[in-house]
Amino acid sequence: MPELRRDPITGRWVIIAQERGNRPYDFIVEEDKTKGGFCPLCPGNEGVTPPEVLAYGRPENIPDSDGWQVRVVPNKFPALIIEGDLNKRGEGIYDKMNGIGAHEVIIETPDHHSNIYQLGHHEIELIFRAYRDRIIDLSGDRRFRYIIIFKNHGKSAGASLEHSHSQLIALPVVPNRIQEELDGCLRYYDYKERCAFCDIIHQERKQGTRIVCENDEFITLCPFASRAPFEMVVMPKNHQSRFVSMTDSQFTSLAEIFSETMKCLNSVVHGVSYNYMLHTAPLHQNSLQYYHWHIEIMPKLTTIAGFEWGTEFYINPSLPEECARSLRGSSNQEE
Amino acid sequence: MPELRRDPITGRWVIIAQERGNRPYDFIVEEDKTKGGFCPLCPGNEGVTPPEVLAYGRPENIPDSDGWQVRVVPNKFPALIIEGDLNKRGEGIYDKMNGIGAHEVIIETPDHHSNIYQLGHHEIELIFRAYRDRIIDLSGDRRFRYIIIFKNHGKSAGASLEHSHSQLIALPVVPNRIQEELDGCLRYYDYKERCAFCDIIHQERKQGTRIVCENDEFITLCPFASRAPFEMVVMPKNHQSRFVSMTDSQFTSLAEIFSETMKCLNSVVHGVSYNYMLHTAPLHQNSLQYYHWHIEIMPKLTTIAGFEWGTEFYINPSLPEECARSLRGSSNQEE
Repeated sequence: MPELRRDPITGRWVIIAQERGNRPYDFIVEEDKTKGGFCPLCPGNEGVTPPEVLAYGRPENIPDSDGWQVRVVPNKFPALIIEGDLNKRGEGIYDKMNGIGAHEVIIETPDHHSNIYQLGHHEIELIFRAYRDRIIDLSGDRRFRYIIIFKNHGKSAGASLEHSHSQLIALPVVPNRIQEELDGCLRYYDYKERCAFCDIIHQERKQGTRIVCENDEFITLCPFASRAPFEMVVMPKNHQSRFVSMTDSQFTSLAEIFSETMKCLNSVVHGVSYNYMLHTAPLHQNSLQYYHWHIEIMPKLTTIAGFEWGTEFYINPSLPEECARSLRGSSNQEE
Repeated sequence: MPELRRDPITGRWVIIAQERGNRPYDFIVEEDKTKGGFCPLCPGNEGVTPPEVLAYGRPENIPDSDGWQVRVVPNKFPALIIEGDLNKRGEGIYDKMNGIGAHEVIIETPDHHSNIYQLGHHEIELIFRAYRDRIIDLSGDRRFRYIIIFKNHGKSAGASLEHSHSQLIALPVVPNRIQEELDGCLRYYDYKERCAFCDIIHQERKQGTRIVCENDEFITLCPFASRAPFEMVVMPKNHQSRFVSMTDSQFTSLAEIFSETMKCLNSVVHGVSYNYMLHTAPLHQNSLQYYHWHIEIMPKLTTIAGFEWGTEFYINPSLPEECARSLRGSSNQEE
């Protein structure tokens, strides 16, 4: 059973998951695959994953058969497990609880060789709809307080499988990083009576220099205080605190802008490893006036070293305005 | 001129340092060196670094000549620069200031091939004395609020030079990570009227399971909520908030325990890359009842991926108690 432990100084939680140390580090590079490397996420291999919890696009609804477009399965080497009680307890001054949660894999395409930037708008829309449907389903479990969805693309970004996929982790606590955003947004709201993200969007649209792309519903920016070259954030232009509140037309718009964003990234730094993370309001809350959901995209071009570990300061060797300009330019070239 | 920018949501600062992008990524592996690779930190090459700000062990005091044991020079590719005003200013909702600060390199030994665990106690003591003397000297500059000292060892921990060295960065703001510790410690102190770190030491000495080594003045632990395998923290056993308050005998004790700690680490995971970071109280403050200085040691055995980026949660595949046991055991083997 994994264990959640809380650092008594910072309040940061860690998952102690010894079982996960045993998982095969099976990063399959393209060459290996064509030489017959085995991919557990490919169609035809549905039997080797745990039974699916969602599949879209399969003409006949036979679970764990092929023919799907997007498929969601529990992680075979989960960081947290779904069965059991939290059993919150102390150990002197320390706090811990059982490692209860959900850990799922969203298989984004049946094609082993496709990356997100190569998928069509409709295919990308299905991925985001799968995110939404899994969040809604897991929200019914009152043990969970937060659901994070993230993607590791490329070995140096932590991917252990090449086949395009993202992951979902449902947590029994609101993570520090999210709480920090919520606290910051609330402080701003208390002072200004406006959403900080809405104000950022307003100012960025006036300045224009950090915009990568934009459509009716969404905007992609290089943040003013970017931590790394080509860091981006995708946000709905109108206030919305929860990812799951999106309308059908917003899903379509999000797929469009996300496709363009990832195409821009790939054409400027081809084949780059990256992480993206969906930040949305915690579960079991109504819409929040002060928080605004968004997707952070972090290309892996710099190293986290002692300075970053020790301070949470980041040294970015590039100007966000110049990153945005070259990303914008690359989009125009393709049009 | 580098620029400091503040994220309006989280308050996190970044350094935008375009000039640093141009620095040669000159990680010299041992093979290269013996093949005649050039090391700017080696004795005889003093002329290629900026003029030294400190040197110990040189029999005759001729600056920038050889014969030194520990030498401190300004970083040739500094993240922050020392000349100028902060010029704090806004840009709409954003905050920024000039990238004013100090960035120095502490060359820990004249021997290109020695790692810290191979140095004698007296040599290690000189390194810590150099840290102290540089902190005291830079504390006189009222523009600086915090000084962080850290070490990147090994390419995957962000080292760009093989020759054993650590770095110092003086900052015009207290970093988020330190503020988080200060806030957490103050909350604990308000409630308990005791230092949280002192309570941790008390409990750890009673339990014993997470102790790596210990002497009269210092203790090394694997933290209860370790973020990564073999993470360690070194702390003075008696309350002390500022690194610079150490007595002479404490410097000797620290050198002893640090030597043992690094020997343990190296014998369990030989040649591992790691970072260490010195966390001490902010500048221009008297001793704090609620804060306790310490050195965090983070071996680089796991990858920071989307989950960690997105949540500040960490997944640790090993049990801190087992890590401490094998580190302790390795020390006994050597005795």
